[in-house]
Amino acid sequence: MITIGFVGLGAMGGRMAGRLVAAGHEVYGTNRTASKAAGLIERGMRWRDTPREVAEAASVVFSMVADDTALDAITTGPDGILAGLGPSKIYVDMSTVSPQTSQELAERVRSRGARMLDAPVSGSVPAAEDGSLAIMVGGPQDAFRTVEPLLRQLGRTVTHVGDNGQGLVLKLAINISLGVQTLAFSEGLLLAERGGIDPKLAADVMTGSAIGSPALKARVPLMLDLPEEAWFDVELMQKDIRLALQAGHALGVPLPATATTDEILTVAREQGYGGRDLAALFQVLARMSGAPDGAGASRGGGSA
Amino acid sequence: MITIGFVGLGAMGGRMAGRLVAAGHEVYGTNRTASKAAGLIERGMRWRDTPREVAEAASVVFSMVADDTALDAITTGPDGILAGLGPSKIYVDMSTVSPQTSQELAERVRSRGARMLDAPVSGSVPAAEDGSLAIMVGGPQDAFRTVEPLLRQLGRTVTHVGDNGQGLVLKLAINISLGVQTLAFSEGLLLAERGGIDPKLAADVMTGSAIGSPALKARVPLMLDLPEEAWFDVELMQKDIRLALQAGHALGVPLPATATTDEILTVAREQGYGGRDLAALFQVLARMSGAPDGAGASRGGGSA
Amino acid sequence: MITIGFVGLGAMGGRMAGRLVAAGHEVYGTNRTASKAAGLIERGMRWRDTPREVAEAASVVFSMVADDTALDAITTGPDGILAGLGPSKIYVDMSTVSPQTSQELAERVRSRGARMLDAPVSGSVPAAEDGSLAIMVGGPQDAFRTVEPLLRQLGRTVTHVGDNGQGLVLKLAINISLGVQTLAFSEGLLLAERGGIDPKLAADVMTGSAIGSPALKARVPLMLDLPEEAWFDVELMQKDIRLALQAGHALGVPLPATATTDEILTVAREQGYGGRDLAALFQVLARMSGAPDGAGASRGGGSA
Amino acid sequence: MITIGFVGLGAMGGRMAGRLVAAGHEVYGTNRTASKAAGLIERGMRWRDTPREVAEAASVVFSMVADDTALDAITTGPDGILAGLGPSKIYVDMSTVSPQTSQELAERVRSRGARMLDAPVSGSVPAAEDGSLAIMVGGPQDAFRTVEPLLRQLGRTVTHVGDNGQGLVLKLAINISLGVQTLAFSEGLLLAERGGIDPKLAADVMTGSAIGSPALKARVPLMLDLPEEAWFDVELMQKDIRLALQAGHALGVPLPATATTDEILTVAREQGYGGRDLAALFQVLARMSGAPDGAGASRGGGSA
Repeated sequence: MITIGFVGLGAMGGRMAGRLVAAGHEVYGTNRTASKAAGLIERGMRWRDTPREVAEAASVVFSMVADDTALDAITTGPDGILAGLGPSKIYVDMSTVSPQTSQELAERVRSRGARMLDAPVSGSVPAAEDGSLAIMVGGPQDAFRTVEPLLRQLGRTVTHVGDNGQGLVLKLAINISLGVQTLAFSEGLLLAERGGIDPKLAADVMTGSAIGSPALKARVPLMLDLPEEAWFDVELMQKDIRLALQAGHALGVPLPATATTDEILTVAREQGYGGRDLAALFQVLARMSGAPDGAGASRGGGSA
Repeated sequence: MITIGFVGLGAMGGRMAGRLVAAGHEVYGTNRTASKAAGLIERGMRWRDTPREVAEAASVVFSMVADDTALDAITTGPDGILAGLGPSKIYVDMSTVSPQTSQELAERVRSRGARMLDAPVSGSVPAAEDGSLAIMVGGPQDAFRTVEPLLRQLGRTVTHVGDNGQGLVLKLAINISLGVQTLAFSEGLLLAERGGIDPKLAADVMTGSAIGSPALKARVPLMLDLPEEAWFDVELMQKDIRLALQAGHALGVPLPATATTDEILTVAREQGYGGRDLAALFQVLARMSGAPDGAGASRGGGSA
Repeated sequence: MITIGFVGLGAMGGRMAGRLVAAGHEVYGTNRTASKAAGLIERGMRWRDTPREVAEAASVVFSMVADDTALDAITTGPDGILAGLGPSKIYVDMSTVSPQTSQELAERVRSRGARMLDAPVSGSVPAAEDGSLAIMVGGPQDAFRTVEPLLRQLGRTVTHVGDNGQGLVLKLAINISLGVQTLAFSEGLLLAERGGIDPKLAADVMTGSAIGSPALKARVPLMLDLPEEAWFDVELMQKDIRLALQAGHALGVPLPATATTDEILTVAREQGYGGRDLAALFQVLARMSGAPDGAGASRGGGSA
Repeated sequence: MITIGFVGLGAMGGRMAGRLVAAGHEVYGTNRTASKAAGLIERGMRWRDTPREVAEAASVVFSMVADDTALDAITTGPDGILAGLGPSKIYVDMSTVSPQTSQELAERVRSRGARMLDAPVSGSVPAAEDGSLAIMVGGPQDAFRTVEPLLRQLGRTVTHVGDNGQGLVLKLAINISLGVQTLAFSEGLLLAERGGIDPKLAADVMTGSAIGSPALKARVPLMLDLPEEAWFDVELMQKDIRLALQAGHALGVPLPATATTDEILTVAREQGYGGRDLAALFQVLARMSGAPDGAGASRGGGSA
């Protein structure tokens, strides 16, 4: 029988672990901040004090953390996941980190006789809650087959992409489009607004046309009235954009539109929108080109 | 009763005029190259030798030409549309031209007692054929009301956006996204391919995610196997991108992603893809970064 | 004996005409605003009411105006320079306009039996005053030889570059560097300032290194304390950058750094720096990335 | 009396250590590849097997390595420089690495009672040979005063910029301009060439104008005839550009021209110019826009 480990019980990881607990699995978990695990423990998750102990207790270990540094913290050292892995165990990291980092980690996992998968997700908190994430998986086919039923409790689409790190490359390939699309849409919307067109009408016609992706459709209300709470904030977006630029550098792929977007995301952070939703790019463009009283700048606004 | 004029009977205009003829309207038409009108004349269109004569014969005059220069050629001079306009007539230009050019032309139309609308379209030849274009209209409300039933014979969605030139501004706002989205998607797809992922699989997962706009979904097969015939070619795309950059300059809107895309479109033209579909951007990126034998460069290919 | 005509007696043209008058030449001149010519008339310039009359009176006609539109205004129509040109006359346009516009004009000049040169200048008002401009000349060699002694009264370096329009292409090639260099230097200087380095010290070390062009050295004091009066303002810089982008488009040359700079110049205009010196880019970068109280933003400042 | 240590005796470091030996100092040195030190040992340098032993033997320790990874290798671990440092010793790292890395290292040096300076250099091998480097120094003033006489045997200009890491920030601020200037110049030169102007003539006029920095003047012959051996190669340039982008990210400084240049440097590497001089950007632009037989592409050429 499969026993499950889960390291990293934040906004995303906590909900994913919750779904595995609710499905009746035996789940061992840990988190840097123990208090966040209280609800999960009430519902039946078993607490362990370190990632190593989680890995020792489980046959399949999941992790979900913020970035390369956090991943290093939970995997290495005497209390890290690696120290708890051994033959026949599978380690599934669902964080969005550098493909290269993940490949190097997979090598260390292999050297302990275990196997690793990178399984980054598309979708945010609500999708983690209701199990409708999109999951892209890199790593050995047989390990994938073993954990696929578990992944299907977390995501609606689960795709085995190829070798270690390739799940991450594909995730970054998608998120390039997310960032750049949003910038391009903001450019057009500001052009329409400064051309005298009602921005609500303009946004509706624009998303009703062939360029209207689900991501843009969902974001239009946030562009027109930027909420305090972000779906996907500027800092996370820039983290992914920078991972993509790193990967582009390593693989020799020029990413001109991505690089341009990165700089505007820096402008966004400096204007005080780092924790606001990516939709803020519309206001960022309006602000960076003056318009202190313009419609764009007056709605919502950052803290700068 | 409304009599209709149509100036510019090329691939798009000819099909649009054909729909108006088929709907039973009395249609007078002309074209720089008379031979292209033969089929329309057979089906009942009445030929006139000059744009002026078309304007004199009709109460509502449409035009559909390639660019600002062509629009100038059919509207000005002793044989131009302006010379044939007078009180109560309505002139509807459906070309994609500079909003400023259109506004100046509207002023000259007004000085002759007539009214003008700019009504650029989204959609290509098949949509012109079956009347499923998206049409964005700028100009006086009353003139719009009068011609709206005619426009509905040409397009599935017809939106009155605002004053003269604003239909064009919104068209350009949309086409910014078309160009930039395609570039960003190509960047991601090349990253995936050089990361070792099967490009067909990558493209499917990418368009299946939230960034998958209808325009991108339709374009993926063309990216993977670039056809000789374009839906929307690189030169036309760049024409629109440059009109948007001009409008951004005039309205004080920074368009960083659009400007970046413009330069890649120049690269595309120089590589010999000017007449190929916008989907060629995938190959252009692959080519500009070497990869003479790479998968991207070997499929289809331009003439350079 | 050579008689000279001069059309366009503004800040640059007036000083250039003044040098020719002072050198003892017979100079006929005109200007849109007649009052600006008063000082020149006192010093011996002979006034004519129209460009045509100037061209009729002179064997070599110079012009110096702001842009393509102004050039069209002084050359075409019944009172334009063209109407006054005939066999054996030479027309030297020193304005910075589109190479294509200049080539088309040269063709019309030829059709009247005269010859044309494009002779745009590098350098601003002080250099026009003391005859130290750099002049790049395109057009027929024999016409160049005839006017070369006159040009040497206006500029320290006078180079015959090639055919009609090529003087302008080279001028634009230089001004690309002027705009982009200034942006790149501003990026570095802001990095140093936000890294805690005294900007005066940083700027001195930077211009003392191998990247310190005369243009950057001259501009550092303006960056650190932006004066009200511009040497070369943001709007003129953007005019040249856009002419270069047009030329790049026509000649199939990708200009990625130039295109990036163009968008920042739009930001500069929108922030209220259109009439300020190009050195304002340092403050523009500081402002677009927030820093409302930052050192960059607090010194000088635009009107936005 | 001061005893000197030198870790990293490659093309740059070897020549710098050689100058210190020649000046009569007692110099202890080591290098990853011992054979490269033979000449120095003959001239009087004393060999030590590890960076730690060098640090133990010397009162002032210099290092000069390629990047952050190499710096980590020589400073950490049981054989690293840190292990050999103690109170009153001064460690001067002259490598171009991340300012943040250097600041963290300075903190570790302090915790051992020693003091650190970052002292990156501008200038290449010939300048290292004849002691004409430009050196920018960050770190404690008193430590700077102590080593300043030694630095003046290596560089013609030695500037104390501020705290730890700030020497590096200023170095990166300069190298942004080096990369971007070269790209902008290449854009202009290609515009001139495709506009029909002789590139040699164009380059001479361009560098003779106000934009002609010493770096550009020196590079023109390499642009026109790209040598096999690089002064400063594309890969090193991109390393610095990426460190600058990282620093811009950390300090909240948008670097749009730098980011654009980074992508073109990726294109350059993929075209096979990674080990060629930065001057290759002229050919890279020509190649990326087709022109397989163009003058630009035919001269020299990369290996792709």
